[in-house]
Order: sequence, then C-alpha cells, then structure tokens
Amino acid sequence: MREKYRWDKQVDVLVVGSGFAGLTAAIEAGEAGKNVLVIEKMKTAGGNSIISDGGIAAPGTLLQEKHGLEDSQQLMYEDMLKAGLGLNHPNLLRTFVTNAGDAFQWTVDYLNVPYMDRVDLFGGHRVPRCYTPEGITGNTILKRMIRKVEDLEIPILYNTCFRRFIQDEKGSVMGCMVDREYDHKSNTGVSTYIKTNKGIILASGGYGADVKFRSIQDPRLDESIQTTNKPFATSEVLKSALEIGAASVQLSHIQLGAWASPDEPGFGHGPMFADYIVFKHGIIINPTTGQRIVNELGDRKQSADAILATGHPCVGIADHRAVTESGWDISKAIDKGVVRVFDTMEDLASFYGIDLESLSESINRYNGFANKGKDEDFGKPIFQDAKGIENPPYYAMRLWPKVHFTMGGLRINKKAQVVDFDGNVIKGLYAAGEVVGGVHGASRLASCAITECIVFGRIAGQNI
Amino acid sequence: MREKYRWDKQVDVLVVGSGFAGLTAAIEAGEAGKNVLVIEKMKTAGGNSIISDGGIAAPGTLLQEKHGLEDSQQLMYEDMLKAGLGLNHPNLLRTFVTNAGDAFQWTVDYLNVPYMDRVDLFGGHRVPRCYTPEGITGNTILKRMIRKVEDLEIPILYNTCFRRFIQDEKGSVMGCMVDREYDHKSNTGVSTYIKTNKGIILASGGYGADVKFRSIQDPRLDESIQTTNKPFATSEVLKSALEIGAASVQLSHIQLGAWASPDEPGFGHGPMFADYIVFKHGIIINPTTGQRIVNELGDRKQSADAILATGHPCVGIADHRAVTESGWDISKAIDKGVVRVFDTMEDLASFYGIDLESLSESINRYNGFANKGKDEDFGKPIFQDAKGIENPPYYAMRLWPKVHFTMGGLRINKKAQVVDFDGNVIKGLYAAGEVVGGVHGASRLASCAITECIVFGRIAGQNI
Repeated sequence: MREKYRWDKQVDVLVVGSGFAGLTAAIEAGEAGKNVLVIEKMKTAGGNSIISDGGIAAPGTLLQEKHGLEDSQQLMYEDMLKAGLGLNHPNLLRTFVTNAGDAFQWTVDYLNVPYMDRVDLFGGHRVPRCYTPEGITGNTILKRMIRKVEDLEIPILYNTCFRRFIQDEKGSVMGCMVDREYDHKSNTGVSTYIKTNKGIILASGGYGADVKFRSIQDPRLDESIQTTNKPFATSEVLKSALEIGAASVQLSHIQLGAWASPDEPGFGHGPMFADYIVFKHGIIINPTTGQRIVNELGDRKQSADAILATGHPCVGIADHRAVTESGWDISKAIDKGVVRVFDTMEDLASFYGIDLESLSESINRYNGFANKGKDEDFGKPIFQDAKGIENPPYYAMRLWPKVHFTMGGLRINKKAQVVDFDGNVIKGLYAAGEVVGGVHGASRLASCAITECIVFGRIAGQNI
Repeated sequence: MREKYRWDKQVDVLVVGSGFAGLTAAIEAGEAGKNVLVIEKMKTAGGNSIISDGGIAAPGTLLQEKHGLEDSQQLMYEDMLKAGLGLNHPNLLRTFVTNAGDAFQWTVDYLNVPYMDRVDLFGGHRVPRCYTPEGITGNTILKRMIRKVEDLEIPILYNTCFRRFIQDEKGSVMGCMVDREYDHKSNTGVSTYIKTNKGIILASGGYGADVKFRSIQDPRLDESIQTTNKPFATSEVLKSALEIGAASVQLSHIQLGAWASPDEPGFGHGPMFADYIVFKHGIIINPTTGQRIVNELGDRKQSADAILATGHPCVGIADHRAVTESGWDISKAIDKGVVRVFDTMEDLASFYGIDLESLSESINRYNGFANKGKDEDFGKPIFQDAKGIENPPYYAMRLWPKVHFTMGGLRINKKAQVVDFDGNVIKGLYAAGEVVGGVHGASRLASCAITECIVFGRIAGQNI
C-alpha cells in the first residue's frame, strides 16, 4: 500500500532542532556510537536556547553545598508542582528532579561550562538553586555543546526544514522528508528523504511565536501580545507529530513572562533587572493606585496574571543598594532606556504618573515588612539579606507580560518516547525539551527549561 | 491508493450521538429534507443530556420580559468571558449569545417544551436568565426531541458504536465504519460501512468519565475523583477526529462541579440543594476553620478550586426560609441522607465537627452582609430577596467536586464545521455540543451546556 522511497540519506538517529535539547540528545547518541545527524531550519545553531540567560536549576548540587544551601529533589518537586497548580505529569516531574542534579553536573564535568560562583533564587523556588553560566547567556553552554558535537563528528545540516514523517506499515517512524536549502520567505526547499534506522528525536522547541497556533489554545494571545521568543518558535513539527497520532498534553498552558518590558522587543535587557533584582529586593507597583499588587517572588503565572489584571503596564522599582549588592550588570538596560534611574522618588512618581503619597505609603509599608522579615500583605518570602527601598538613586522599569514558554506539547514517557492518547509508544519517535508537554503543568518555574532540555535530551539520546 | 468499500448503507447525514446536540442537528437536517441517520452507542437515547436538570440559559427572552428582567446578549457574552478567564473563542462565543435566545424559543415553539414559570440566577450570571423545564430534568426536553425525530422518520440505530472515518483522496469525510450490535464488555460488534453524501455531525459529548484521557490533560483527575457524567462519556470519537487532523482546543480545561456531594454517586440529588439554594441564599463553610471560603455565587471554577484547596469536603448551609421560599423540592436529597436537617446550629456544628463559636461568628457576619446588601469578605452579590441564615431547621450537605464538563474539544468554525490547526475545513465533518471546544474557555457557566447543544446542533443541521 505504501510508496517506495528513494532514500537520499541513511542515519541511525536524526535530531530535529539544534537547541539545548537537540544537541544534548545528539551528543548522547553520538557517545553511544550511533550515526547521528542534526537538522536545523535556521542558518545557525541554538534556536531559542542561545538567547536565554543560560540559567539552569537543580537540587542538591556541589555548588549549593559550597554556599551552605540545603535542598532536595523532593523540595524541588513540590515547588514545581505548586507552580504547576498540580497539573504536572508526576512521572515526568519525578524523572526531571531525579536527573536534574546529574544534568547540571554533566554540563560542568563533561561540557566544561563555566558557571558564576553564585546560587540564585527566583520566584517560586523556596531555596536558591539556579546557576548562571559566565556571560549570563545560553551561548556559553551552546558553544561547548557545539564543540562536543564537532568532536563527535556529528553533522548539523542548517537551512533544513522538517516536513513530514515516513512510517512503515505498522506506523513506526522509519524516516522523514525534509527540505534542504530551505527558504523561509517562500517556504520551499529541496525535498530530501532520510531513512532513520533507530529513530527521530524531536527537539524543535515551543510555539510561543506561532500566533495562529497559540491563540487557538489561548485566544488572548493574539498578535497584540509580544513574545520573548525568536520568530521561528513555531508549531510545524509538533503538528506533524500530532498528525501521526502523538498525544498532545496541555497545549493551552502558555507562560507569560512577568518581567518583560513593553519598551523593547523580544526578551531584551529589562528582564535581568526585573527578575534578578526587583522581584527579590523591590516591588511591583500599579501606577493607577500606587500600590503593590502581588507577591513579587510568587511564580510567573501569579505575577503575570496580576499585571495583566490591572489592564496596563505596571512599574518595578528597586533602590541603588539592591542593584549594587545584586552584582548584576544592568547597564545595557539603562543605556537602552528600558530601566530608568531617578534621583528621588518624586521624580520617579512624576515620570510614571504615580500619586507620590500613595507610592511613599506603599514603600514605607514594604520597608517595614522587610525590617521585620514578614510581608503581611502578600506573603512574599523575606530573606536575611532583604532590605527596604531606601537608598537613591531609584531604578524602575515598566512591566507588561510577553509570551515566554509553552508548557504544553507532545506526550512522552519516562524514556522520552512519544506516546499516543492510549499510552502506546510510537516506535522510532522521541522528543525532548519545550516540544514536550507535562513536565511543568500550568506554569514553569524559572531556570527549569534548560534543565528539562538537558535531562530529557540525555534520556532521549541514551535510549534511542 | 485507497481501498474500495462495500457500503452497507448510504445516507445524506450521519449524526453520532443522541443527546441534545445530536437530536437537534438531526431534526434540523431532517427539516431541510436530508436523509438522516442517528447512531447511538448505548441502548437508549439521551446520553448525558437525559440526566441533566434541563436548565437552559439565554438572554433577552420573553420569559425574562414577563418577569421584568433586563438582559442582553452583550451582558451574557461578558459573563461567560469572565468565567472563561478570557479564553473563550470570541467567534464561537458571539455565535452562542447571538443565537441563544432563538434556541430557547425554538424549544418552546417548535419542540413545545413546558418550562416552569420562573427565571433563575446561578453562579457567574449577573442576571437571572436560566430556565428550567417541568420536572426539572433534561428528559422533558429529550422526549419532545424524540417525538420530532419520529415525526421526521429519522431512524436512531442503538448499540451502534462509531469506529473510524473513511476519507476520499483529498481527505474529505465520505463515510465511516461503525459497529452495530455493539457489546460494551468485549468492545466488539458487526462492522458496518456507511456512506455519507453530505457529511457526519459529531455530537458524541465530552470525556468527563474517561479517566485515561482526562488525566493526560489534568493529572489530578485520576480515578479517585468521581464524575457526574454517565460512565460512557468517553473520548473515542473525539480521538478519531484528531487522528484525521481536526484541531484540539483547550483539552486541559475540565470543569469540576462544586455542588457535588461525596455522599452519593454520579450527579445525584444534592446539587439541586447546593446550586439552587446554598449558593444563592446560604454559605459554604470550611469545617476545619468554621469560616466561609469563597463567593458562593462565583463561577464554578472559583468555587471548586476553593473547596479543593481546603483538602477536604466543605459544608454548604442554608436555613428553612431559604429552602421554603426557593420553591425547590429537595426531599429526595434528604431521604437519601445527602442533605441533612438540624433543629439547631449546635447540632449541625457537632455533626460536621465544626467549632460552634467560629461557625456562629461566620453566620452572624454573613447575616450582617445580607442585611446591608454588601458582602465585604468575598463580594458575593446580595440580591433584594437575600436574607440571613436565621430560621431553623438548618439544612446542610457536604461538598466535594466531581468532574462535570469538559470545556475542551474539537475546533469548529461558526458554521459548526470541524477545522484543522491551520483553520482549513475538514470537508464533510461537523460537530456540536460538548465534543466541541472553545465556547466556554476555562470554565462553563451554569445552564450554558444545553444552550450550546441546541445553538450549534441547529447550525450544524442547517449547514450540512
């Protein structure tokens, strides 16, 4: 019944996508002696991974131990489950936390990624467990992955777009058709048939920039909402998998970044200030009321929903001490005018049109909480090094959510095999990274995306 | 390339399912002169529709006018959008409210459904717009639909289970394979091929009883959570449509009934007391604290989430006057021991293990709100006829959510045609009722399910 293909290529393993999940899977499959090929629809490697800040979260690491921090897999499991509103797939979440520490250590020992000597706490995590590579960019990790891929002599075909699966009579994936010399504008290329002896690993990322697809699941997220993703974060590979019977999981759970600025495109420079400084040491103010609106260290969904609910951008504020003591360099955000610096609170209030009296009252109230170690209004955790907003100059930025991450995706089992709605494995098909759904439930915690890519990328590469 | 089928039957229109959506579609297609066949996997008609209370919501009706109630399509649109957390598909919601009044009137004028002379308000609706048929059961509506189906000489094949679509070379649906003499236990039957000249209308209902399917989208909803649905509310027809490329919409939005009792199976008799009496005139108490937990007239998601968040069943309480003046007969719930009657608040508190002092304080506080017309704790709307909880005996029931309705489903356009993720119509395929996703967003308001069945059932039947 089925046509015979003239195969142009034959490999053991084809990896679709060259972000963290794809390259990790390729490396593991290559290390296991497989003949591996990576395809990438863009002209360079890295996908969205390369524009991330590179932050990776894991519990029970040597770096935590060095900094005297206690943590456990169970604690991280609970934090992620809470942020996910209990909707995380328990088997995937358990696999995630069980392997997260090893995944991080693998980037240290095997990839030789250099990390900053600090462990950070971001919203929703109860203890500091987030590690940042030198340069504060995913590119630090990516470069080392690329080096390993080259060492293993794994080719990456750029400008090569996945088109469709080719299955045998029983539905097993036996290969695929891709377009080489892919042209984005005309959406055309040279059809090439690749036979895959062991299988295909999908690591094609999320659909955050795919307005048509994402707005089917969340109609609020039309073209008026920006995204932190690159414009090629689209759904075509995911849809191809659904077409051959893969189960979709929680496609309507789409994360908005609460730390995004409406005053710059893409991810931008503002989020470092908002996420690393304001949320821990500062406050988010509704300019209409001059009041706080949320536990700034709550999970992303809480913060983004709270900002959206005001109907307009809010203002994140931190003082000079917080900026200085954080150790983060926010000069780019200041240079671009995304973060603004004010000598007095009067100037700040005036610039954003906030009633000064209300704002001062809110700040005094927050400072009181910081001093006594208890946020009576929103229950934000107050840490030992927390201080009030007292030392000028004051730093501020407007906040308005952008689509950041798509929690939904393909259903996989613990071996990273893609399964259908009845739990049956689609033979020859694996997936890892953002294209997968279920790990994060309703909302992903900060720095857990890269961990997911590496944990499940390794599993896919080892199991295929 | 495709096999030739020996068609056992040929019709213009095949309707899958004999609940409100299916029978409405069959009637409209029959009235338009089409040769229609309905298949039903069970041995009788009505699906979940027959066990509903028959309540139907619509704005701007003659019955509202008679009772001096002002309402509008826009008001209902806003109420549903608010309950849906803004996730409703705007085009479907607009179609819904635009046609809801006509749909209700069609049940009055065309079907001759007798309604009680009252207009009710349920949680999330800002004005009374819910109509209840005599007997307070969907069966009152169903019997009249069946009569019309018989008048139109439309056969219903019982014990007939949909198996799979048959498509032509272009992917258009040209028929299907069904199993006649379907046996549920062995999941087998006699394969029968039906050619459909105009198309197939899917009206197969939701997946509330399909533990495997629903827990992929919401892992909390495993077998430990009961459902108000009949056990055959499963996903097989929906999955068949996904397999041929239909887009899924918001499958993870699954509604829990906040008015359900853990002390009886299925929908039961308790919900009438909880939804019609407690939520409007009474309060929901967390037995551990003795305090209210939520705006009892908030939407279902709010109430169910609030009850679930306590970790154990809560207690709904109303007084004798509320029960008497409501006009609802709750004797069955009392006979079954689901609703209990107490001469004193002491007895009630003691039975449920609630601290009497805390409970009395909560009731006094609520009575104060009822008197002054303002709920300062939860913002519950207090209506003119609202009264406190003062007159013994007191009625109470335990509340613990059950899976009630699945908001997610197939994507359709305004003509009830099933479409794929790119918005392309799958020719020959229509859908209506709970199998469709997008009308209700994150949460469906009370009495809007039957309206949906009739609005989109009519559209499907008229357009096919």
